[in-house]
Amino acid sequence: MSQVNFEEFLRDRFQIQFKNQDLLTEALTQRNYLNEHPEEKGRDYQRLEFLGDAVMQESVTEYLFKRYPNWHEGQLTEMRIAMVQTRSFAHFARVIHLDGAIRLGKGEEMNGARQRDSLLEDIWEAFIGALYLDQGADVVRKLLNETLFKAIDEHFFDQFIDFKSRLQERLQAKGTVDIEYTTDAEEELPDHTQRFTASVSVNGKHIGQGQGKSIKDAEKAAAREAMQNLDDK
Amino acid sequence: MSQVNFEEFLRDRFQIQFKNQDLLTEALTQRNYLNEHPEEKGRDYQRLEFLGDAVMQESVTEYLFKRYPNWHEGQLTEMRIAMVQTRSFAHFARVIHLDGAIRLGKGEEMNGARQRDSLLEDIWEAFIGALYLDQGADVVRKLLNETLFKAIDEHFFDQFIDFKSRLQERLQAKGTVDIEYTTDAEEELPDHTQRFTASVSVNGKHIGQGQGKSIKDAEKAAAREAMQNLDDK
Repeated sequence: MSQVNFEEFLRDRFQIQFKNQDLLTEALTQRNYLNEHPEEKGRDYQRLEFLGDAVMQESVTEYLFKRYPNWHEGQLTEMRIAMVQTRSFAHFARVIHLDGAIRLGKGEEMNGARQRDSLLEDIWEAFIGALYLDQGADVVRKLLNETLFKAIDEHFFDQFIDFKSRLQERLQAKGTVDIEYTTDAEEELPDHTQRFTASVSVNGKHIGQGQGKSIKDAEKAAAREAMQNLDDK
Repeated sequence: MSQVNFEEFLRDRFQIQFKNQDLLTEALTQRNYLNEHPEEKGRDYQRLEFLGDAVMQESVTEYLFKRYPNWHEGQLTEMRIAMVQTRSFAHFARVIHLDGAIRLGKGEEMNGARQRDSLLEDIWEAFIGALYLDQGADVVRKLLNETLFKAIDEHFFDQFIDFKSRLQERLQAKGTVDIEYTTDAEEELPDHTQRFTASVSVNGKHIGQGQGKSIKDAEKAAAREAMQNLDDK
């Protein structure tokens, strides 16, 4: 669990300070915590999660739509699926230290819920819902620019995309093709890990090359490059 | 098919005039139309539909969240499902005369696609996506205020909600209960249609009453009133 204070982190890293503190508290509160603290009058995070889920979907959709003006809706949908999902939201909840700030019931705490992806996803959405209400769409977009959207350039979401299947689907949409992967090189790096280089060709024509720690990773990188080359045409 | 000119209607009824006419054209263009008009350089509606779908989901979610501060997420979700669906969007596409404005391929036209709910849903979403890009979120909200959101007060979405099942689920969540519907009255109206009045009681206690053109409709109205009474508590 993160030892960083979430509210200090929000302020120092993103210059965000909630006007309505109750909204933030609601986003961080799990139902069983309220059952154990009947003196508290607040609500749990579920209504804010309902809102934040839709805000996330809309924000990511609008960003992808504008960033990739030449992608068709199938490519946009695929990228959105990779971004708007449990593992992605749980990851970014940890990145901004939301995990340590959740107000959890004792039983849930003992069961390890604080590190469970499904809870972290809910809390991420609830937090985004609270942020949207308290600070508006522009501040949400700014936070996403520095987290999810930046991660596109760092190829974070590539792990969730099966580029080899996607390339195959795309090439075969125009008829039967012969897709071949070849391993071009295998090196040992100074840190004693291996690096593989792979190429992909279609009907004998080279269309992409990539590198990775395994043959599988190198082929995936080659397929990704081939997709990119097809997009740029 | 509507004989009203869509763009004139937009201007006269909602004071909306597109700055970027190409965006509106794209939202109204079906793929086969482009296949038949290779001289046209534009795109079909599918990218804008991808955007508009998310804008609709977010707009309806935010509206329901703010309008019903005491509803829990289950109630909000149920209402959103009734509002964000094919039959609903197709209905409002016809209301604003979108149906007559679609640029459709000849084959699709002959197959009656212009009156197909699934196409009208797509075109509604694409139009909302174009409106959002061209005019911004406030204008989208204004249009929805005068169409979908107003229809809540006119009980338009009630047809999509099974109030009797919902009431039963809600009452039984707290243990076994005895729910009973009784028909209180049956009248003949001046136009020779019938009007029924029904009541619903739980464990012998009256909790709602409603009227309708059939016993079934009257019981549904009674269940709806009972749900409302439970909400107001």
